[in-house]
Amino acid sequence: MKKDKTPGAEVISRDPFPKSKKVYIPGQLHDIKVAMREVELTDTQDRFNNKTEKNDSITLYDTSGPYTDPDISIDVNEGLPPLRNSWILDREDVEELPSISSEYGNLRLNDHSLDELRFKHLKKPLKAKAGKNVTQLHYARKGIITPEMEYIAIRENQRLEQLYKGEDTLWKQHPGNSFGANTPKKWITPEFVRDEVAAGRAIIPANINHPEIEPMVIGRNFLVKINANIGNSAVTSSIEEEVEKMVWAIRWGADTVMDLSTGKNIHETREWVIRNSPVPIGTVPIYQALEKVNGKAEDLTWEIFRDTLIEQAEQGVDYFTIHAGVRLQYIPLTAKRVTGIVSRGGSIMAKWCLAHHQESFLYTHFEEICEIMKAYDVSFSLGDGLRPGSLADANDAAQFAELETLGELTKIAWKHDVQVMIEGPGHVPMHMIKENMDKQLKECHEAPFYTLGPLTTDIAPGYDHITSAIGAAMIGWFGTAMLCYVTPKEHLGLPNKKDVKDGVITYKIAAHAADLAKGHPGAQYRDNALSKARFEFRWEDQFNLSLDPDTAREFHDETLPAEGAKIAHFCSMCGPHFCSMKITQDVRKYAEEKGLDNEEEAVQEGMKEKSEEFKQAGSEIYL
Amino acid sequence: MKKDKTPGAEVISRDPFPKSKKVYIPGQLHDIKVAMREVELTDTQDRFNNKTEKNDSITLYDTSGPYTDPDISIDVNEGLPPLRNSWILDREDVEELPSISSEYGNLRLNDHSLDELRFKHLKKPLKAKAGKNVTQLHYARKGIITPEMEYIAIRENQRLEQLYKGEDTLWKQHPGNSFGANTPKKWITPEFVRDEVAAGRAIIPANINHPEIEPMVIGRNFLVKINANIGNSAVTSSIEEEVEKMVWAIRWGADTVMDLSTGKNIHETREWVIRNSPVPIGTVPIYQALEKVNGKAEDLTWEIFRDTLIEQAEQGVDYFTIHAGVRLQYIPLTAKRVTGIVSRGGSIMAKWCLAHHQESFLYTHFEEICEIMKAYDVSFSLGDGLRPGSLADANDAAQFAELETLGELTKIAWKHDVQVMIEGPGHVPMHMIKENMDKQLKECHEAPFYTLGPLTTDIAPGYDHITSAIGAAMIGWFGTAMLCYVTPKEHLGLPNKKDVKDGVITYKIAAHAADLAKGHPGAQYRDNALSKARFEFRWEDQFNLSLDPDTAREFHDETLPAEGAKIAHFCSMCGPHFCSMKITQDVRKYAEEKGLDNEEEAVQEGMKEKSEEFKQAGSEIYL
Repeated sequence: MKKDKTPGAEVISRDPFPKSKKVYIPGQLHDIKVAMREVELTDTQDRFNNKTEKNDSITLYDTSGPYTDPDISIDVNEGLPPLRNSWILDREDVEELPSISSEYGNLRLNDHSLDELRFKHLKKPLKAKAGKNVTQLHYARKGIITPEMEYIAIRENQRLEQLYKGEDTLWKQHPGNSFGANTPKKWITPEFVRDEVAAGRAIIPANINHPEIEPMVIGRNFLVKINANIGNSAVTSSIEEEVEKMVWAIRWGADTVMDLSTGKNIHETREWVIRNSPVPIGTVPIYQALEKVNGKAEDLTWEIFRDTLIEQAEQGVDYFTIHAGVRLQYIPLTAKRVTGIVSRGGSIMAKWCLAHHQESFLYTHFEEICEIMKAYDVSFSLGDGLRPGSLADANDAAQFAELETLGELTKIAWKHDVQVMIEGPGHVPMHMIKENMDKQLKECHEAPFYTLGPLTTDIAPGYDHITSAIGAAMIGWFGTAMLCYVTPKEHLGLPNKKDVKDGVITYKIAAHAADLAKGHPGAQYRDNALSKARFEFRWEDQFNLSLDPDTAREFHDETLPAEGAKIAHFCSMCGPHFCSMKITQDVRKYAEEKGLDNEEEAVQEGMKEKSEEFKQAGSEIYL
Repeated sequence: MKKDKTPGAEVISRDPFPKSKKVYIPGQLHDIKVAMREVELTDTQDRFNNKTEKNDSITLYDTSGPYTDPDISIDVNEGLPPLRNSWILDREDVEELPSISSEYGNLRLNDHSLDELRFKHLKKPLKAKAGKNVTQLHYARKGIITPEMEYIAIRENQRLEQLYKGEDTLWKQHPGNSFGANTPKKWITPEFVRDEVAAGRAIIPANINHPEIEPMVIGRNFLVKINANIGNSAVTSSIEEEVEKMVWAIRWGADTVMDLSTGKNIHETREWVIRNSPVPIGTVPIYQALEKVNGKAEDLTWEIFRDTLIEQAEQGVDYFTIHAGVRLQYIPLTAKRVTGIVSRGGSIMAKWCLAHHQESFLYTHFEEICEIMKAYDVSFSLGDGLRPGSLADANDAAQFAELETLGELTKIAWKHDVQVMIEGPGHVPMHMIKENMDKQLKECHEAPFYTLGPLTTDIAPGYDHITSAIGAAMIGWFGTAMLCYVTPKEHLGLPNKKDVKDGVITYKIAAHAADLAKGHPGAQYRDNALSKARFEFRWEDQFNLSLDPDTAREFHDETLPAEGAKIAHFCSMCGPHFCSMKITQDVRKYAEEKGLDNEEEAVQEGMKEKSEEFKQAGSEIYL
């Protein structure tokens, strides 16, 4: 791994991907440069006709940010360059505050024992000017195409519109089934991004205090996104390790990262993570609020929660999971479940509601929460506190009652021009997944769905990245906009680095499988390019086009170590005589010589006739 | 691992599963004992009411055979006890041959340089008496319930019918959607097994020369099964290692094993594998036939292939993959594919057809093949030689033309009372999977479908157990009877022991997720039991009920090593204050005290009213 010279940075992963270089595509409406990854391919060797064909390089959607660009020097103590600074300031609707507003934030700031731990270059927080609304939803509804929106349009297209040259092999794509989604036929335009955001069908998590992000969109009509969770939890790790956890997750494809840290110093840790994160950061503020009352849910108050929202909003958290749908009256609906309430936030609020026998303060203060969110453009991720924790509890009264309430809250948030996505289950057998999607679209007025899995069976602890990838791929196909990853350690313990990578790659698979099934424009291009490379024994290209080049290469070399073998026209699975692809090449050559490949229709006709004969003959011979 | 004293056996895995004991359930129609695994559970500690509740032990379907029974001593040189010997002989329709019939088999037998390598206790082969048909399909059509059929009925029920005591928590199960399958409402009866086999909807792979197997069934209306492939391929491994590969695969749940060995000495290796295998063994005879002509497909002849079928049938192979649907006229349909013909058997036959410009000898000699199959009860696995090797080639003319031919061949095989299943793809995006299942059911008259994956994307070499598990779970739900596993090494190299286990566990997940979605009777029982254990912090029970207790336990202990921690009422994921399950238990207690859990309906009513009020209020406050 390439090392950075600054203290604490030695643990940060910075290697570029093999045969890949960072490219930056300029905008047309705005002065922006959209980061992508370009993979260089080798030539096709046509041994039959003794000629070589060039293969165009392929551009991929890239979540890894500046970390994979060797030309950019990064100092985790400085944080990333604030890409969006001028975009935000040029709108002239924000003001720099003299100091941070939250009581707790100031408490930490004035505690000099924390100076060592504290991010060195704290900036003053930005906030909407009085009477201003700075959300992307607000701009979209005003018809404004922000730089963020243009950035997203260019990013989603992955330069495919430039590569496109008619319907050749690489452009083969099956028409998908997107279940009535409004997916564009060809490319994403800035106008389309604006329209989807304005309609509430998509969100752009982009806190004005997180200018470091490369904007991304979460919506049913865009590429399916994935989220990775990081956090120190009980076991505390160093701040650099926390930053590296985020860097590691986005390296493999996490589109957003949720910081679920719960140890002490989470305020300081969060600052480091946000300052160094090119992707939106989400949190569950109730976790920190609970820490402030020493873990006693019944001691929580609106004031403490409110101060926590402001504390985190001014640090730059891009979306908050808020379990405002866990209402007092729904809690008894969980009493007869097999696994009760398994959402942490949900169970905390349930305990509070019962302790006070009062309606949740998240619900009763929802409008005040919206006022805070819109002053910083923090998006809602309305939490599913009553999601099922086992197949047995799937799609029950408690879960769906909460979902209906989340739909009501969505309308309230939209009234304030606050962006909203909705969190979903959980544990659901395959045949009950679509009901979740359909009900969410209906009850929540097409606000983006953000689901955890769902897990399709409970019997495989240690493999829940897989039990859930099955459900995730399906619900993504049905219309879920973002999939929250599950690691192999789910239900068992804290994920390590390998678990995080396994979870992210597994969810990239689920998300891409969903894009293919939806027929997202150009989604199949990478599959075709990799399959062509595979068929032509361009091993290096096959590795480099894959989601995880390191593992693909390592697995291949494990059985065939020699460099020569990689270019040899057989692989160890089949051996020299058994390479079906070699035989197929011979077949193709043979067919070409005989001109058979130009007779498809004729042959199909002949086929039908033959099978007719066969049936007639059959009716005599065989019956 | 427990070691066996006999030479060559030191590598064989024989550890029983934790807290598990082998149980044998007697038959009622026949003198049989059906092997299963019983998992003992700990008591539930109800801390609130200071009492303990007993949890019934759970019986699981067990593919591991005698290897996990410490009371049975196994010598790989002797082979397993021939469970079915008397069943087969009592039918009085078979005769013992004076010697093996195949030319090649005799060639090997008389080669004394192989004596060292040769299985020590070769028995004379059995064959149907002249004019007799010894297939399970033949018996079923005659209305006979064989011991195999009763064994299967008892085995499929996993003693659930004995455990059943009314609709308590553990019996909660969502009504499934089996897409019009004929899945029984309650338990499997021997009559039902016979009827499904007679209808051709299910097969019992059970060669009369493989008496060692514990009978199993492959059919849409039974538990979904999985197959694991083993083989030495180019890299040769010792015979004991080959046997252990099979033992290792069935330990984790492989219902059948295909021996795809292609090195030299495969004749001898196969004998060892079959003699020690309690599960049906499948092969692709064309691979060995090709070896006999030094890998030159064009040199293949019907006579060489025929001799290979007899050679393997007399060793006891239970099903043959035969690519008889690759017809000359279909081959040009593949010429414009992205990945041509990727099935090894398919490409071998394609090459032969083109070399001779003749119809495939597998197709023209199909009736003679049936004559051989029925004399030993070898089942057909009609190979999909033209399956797509990439998403781009999915569901194309070549693939479906072959499928139609397989349907024609199915009828011919059935005319001979030969059992048939049909092989399926391959690489297919999610939204095109159901078309494969529907067309197979229609064209092949409901003969069982046996699919490879399908892989739902091509971009993740190194993770194709996952890309394919998504498709496998879905097609299993739609009606596929057996899923052929894919390992992480697919497309890259030879699977090692870890890869085989990963592939098997991943496919057990897919198969079980399918059973749940189909609503197979009792399928959810294990999920409920594990979820209840999870909710009650019975960690050991959670591990022991899982598909892979070793990994679940190891992952948990990795972050919480202390024994105490396992029984502590929190896990490292959340930490002491954040254990949502602990909070839920408090919530439940609270709800019980307030008697709220008896007010579900009332509360739901109240809920509706409240939300009405809310909307009315809303219409004033919010609009």
